[in-house]
Amino acid sequence: MKQIILKERPAGKITEASFETKEVRLNGLHDSELHLKLVFLSVDPYLLGRMNNESADMPSFKHGEPIKSTGVLRVIRSESRDFEEGDLVVGQVPWQEEVIVSEKKVRKIDTSFISAKAYLGVIGMTGLTAYFGLLDIGKPKKDETVVVSAAAGAVGSTVGQIAQIKGAHVIGITGTDDKARYLVKEIGFNAAVNYHDPNFAENLKRACPNGVDVYFESVGGEISEAVWPLLNKFARIPVCGTISNYNSPAEEDVGTRVQRYLIQANALMQGFSVTNYKEDYKEATEQLIKWLREGKLTHKETVLKGFDQIVPAFISLFEGKNIGKIIVEMTD
Amino acid sequence: MKQIILKERPAGKITEASFETKEVRLNGLHDSELHLKLVFLSVDPYLLGRMNNESADMPSFKHGEPIKSTGVLRVIRSESRDFEEGDLVVGQVPWQEEVIVSEKKVRKIDTSFISAKAYLGVIGMTGLTAYFGLLDIGKPKKDETVVVSAAAGAVGSTVGQIAQIKGAHVIGITGTDDKARYLVKEIGFNAAVNYHDPNFAENLKRACPNGVDVYFESVGGEISEAVWPLLNKFARIPVCGTISNYNSPAEEDVGTRVQRYLIQANALMQGFSVTNYKEDYKEATEQLIKWLREGKLTHKETVLKGFDQIVPAFISLFEGKNIGKIIVEMTD
Repeated sequence: MKQIILKERPAGKITEASFETKEVRLNGLHDSELHLKLVFLSVDPYLLGRMNNESADMPSFKHGEPIKSTGVLRVIRSESRDFEEGDLVVGQVPWQEEVIVSEKKVRKIDTSFISAKAYLGVIGMTGLTAYFGLLDIGKPKKDETVVVSAAAGAVGSTVGQIAQIKGAHVIGITGTDDKARYLVKEIGFNAAVNYHDPNFAENLKRACPNGVDVYFESVGGEISEAVWPLLNKFARIPVCGTISNYNSPAEEDVGTRVQRYLIQANALMQGFSVTNYKEDYKEATEQLIKWLREGKLTHKETVLKGFDQIVPAFISLFEGKNIGKIIVEMTD
Repeated sequence: MKQIILKERPAGKITEASFETKEVRLNGLHDSELHLKLVFLSVDPYLLGRMNNESADMPSFKHGEPIKSTGVLRVIRSESRDFEEGDLVVGQVPWQEEVIVSEKKVRKIDTSFISAKAYLGVIGMTGLTAYFGLLDIGKPKKDETVVVSAAAGAVGSTVGQIAQIKGAHVIGITGTDDKARYLVKEIGFNAAVNYHDPNFAENLKRACPNGVDVYFESVGGEISEAVWPLLNKFARIPVCGTISNYNSPAEEDVGTRVQRYLIQANALMQGFSVTNYKEDYKEATEQLIKWLREGKLTHKETVLKGFDQIVPAFISLFEGKNIGKIIVEMTD
C-alpha cells in the first residue's frame, strides 16, 4: 500500500520535498477492526501547523510517520459487528491507500441525502470551524456588516452563508475576479473585493459604508490591515488562521500592530480551534444539515483525482487558486 | 483665571507647543451652579487620544478649547441646596484655576477615611479601569500567571494588586530597577522585569515558568512582543492602551503580527474603555474602597505642585519615569 510520510518539516515554503511516498504492508485484521479503502481525502491548511510543530491543539506529526487527515473510506473487510462490507465511514486516517483501524476510530455516514464529499467539508470540520468561529465569537446580528477573508475557500464560503442566514450584510475578500463573481452570483454575498486590486483598501471601505462589525480572519498579513481602520465599536474578530504567512517564519510576519485599533473600536479578537467545541459538534452538525437540506447552505468542492494528487492538492491550499473545499478522490 | 487650551493637535511627540495658557473671566453664578476652586488635577494618558481625535469613546478636544480631565475641587460659592462652601467635589473639569459648573457635573466626596487624591486614582477612573479590564476581560483564576505592563503606573499597580487578591501569580513589566523594586518590595508582586535590560525577553520567560494566562496590555510595541510566545492556551489580553506609541503615528507602529500567537494559544485580546462599564461603577467603587480599607490595596501618587506643572505632568506620563498616579496639586 502506498503511504505518504513527513520527510522534513517544511519551515519555509511548503514543497513536495517535505513528503515521501513509501510502500507499507498491512497487518492482519483483529477483532473489532476494519479494513478500509480510502475514497475521498480532505487536505486542510491546519495540517501545516502539525507538520511544523506549531499546533497548540493537536500533536505534531513526526519525521518518518504518515500525515493524517480526515477521509471518507469504504469498508472492505469487517471484524466488527457494527460495520459491514461496503459501508462508508469517516475518520482521521493516515494518507494511505488502505488501512486497518479499530472500529472506534471511524463512524458510519449516510449518503442518501448528503454527498460523501460534504462530510469532509460543509458538515465536517470545515463547516464546524465556520459555525463555531462565526456564531460563538463573531456573533453577527441582523443588518450588521460581516467581512470574510479567504471568502471563496472552504471555511470562508460557509462563514459568509451562515452570516447571511443570520441577516448580516456580507462582504468577501478574495484573490481573483472569478472567485469574487462566484461569491456574489452563486452564493449570494452582498459584495466581494479582490485583494490583488491596487485600490483594494479603498474598494473594501466603499463596500462597507457602515463599517465592519465582524471580521472573520483566515489570512492575516496586509489584507487584514485594510480591515482594522474600518472596525466599528465592539467589533468581533474570530481568528481562524493566517494562511497568508503559513509559508513564512514568524519573524517575517511583521506589520501594523493591531492593538491601537482594538482600543479605538473596543474590539475583540480571539484565536480559536474547532476542537474547543467538541461537546457541541452534534448539535452544530444537525443545524448545518438542516440548512443544507433547506437549500440555505450550498457547498462546492475542487476535486483532484488520484492518490498521487494528495501532496499537490495540499500545496495548492496555500496558492489561493481554488474555490471551495479541496478534496482528493481515489481513482481505482 | 488661568486656563490651558489645546493649541495644536500633537500628532507626533507631545510637547509644550500643543498647549497655551490664557486668562479667562468667570461668568456670574446662576441658580444650581457652583463656583469651584481646583485642588488636585488628574492627568491621564487617554487624554492624548482626545487631543489627537483618535478616541472612539469620548469627544475630541477642539482647537482653542480647554483640555478637561478629572479634578478634586473645593466649593467656594454655592447656589445649590446640596452643596455648601468648603465641600470637596470630584468631576470632569477644564484645566482652569477656578470654574463655574452646574451642580450636576460634580459629586461630593468623603475624605474622612480615604484621601482626596485616591478619588483621582485607585477609586477613580484609574482604579475602575484596572478593575473592569482585569476582572471582566482578564478573569484571572487562582494560581494563574498574570503579567502586567506599565506595572508601576497608576493602572498597572492596581491591576497587579487585584490579581494578587484573586490568588494569581503576578509579574510586572517596568522600565527601571527602582520601579521593579517598588513592585516587589512595596506592593508584593511576585517578580518584576525591567524592559530596558538587554535580556528582557529571557528574563520575562524565566519569571513565568508556567506561561502567561493573563496579559494586561497598556504599552504595546516591542515590550508586548516578548509576551506573545509565552501565552498559555485560552490566555486573555485586556488591551487598555499602547502608551509606547501614543507619541508616534499609526504607520510607524509596526511589529510582529499577533494573530498567529492568538491562534496557537486560542487566546482572546480585547480593547476596552472604562466607560463601557458605567452601570457597574458604583458596585466596583464599593469593592475597591473595601479592599483599600482592608489594607489589601495600596496606592501611591507622584505629586507635582502648581497650576504651571499641569502640562509638564501630562508630558511626563509618556516618559515612563513616575511611580503610581500622577497628580497635580494646586499651591495657593
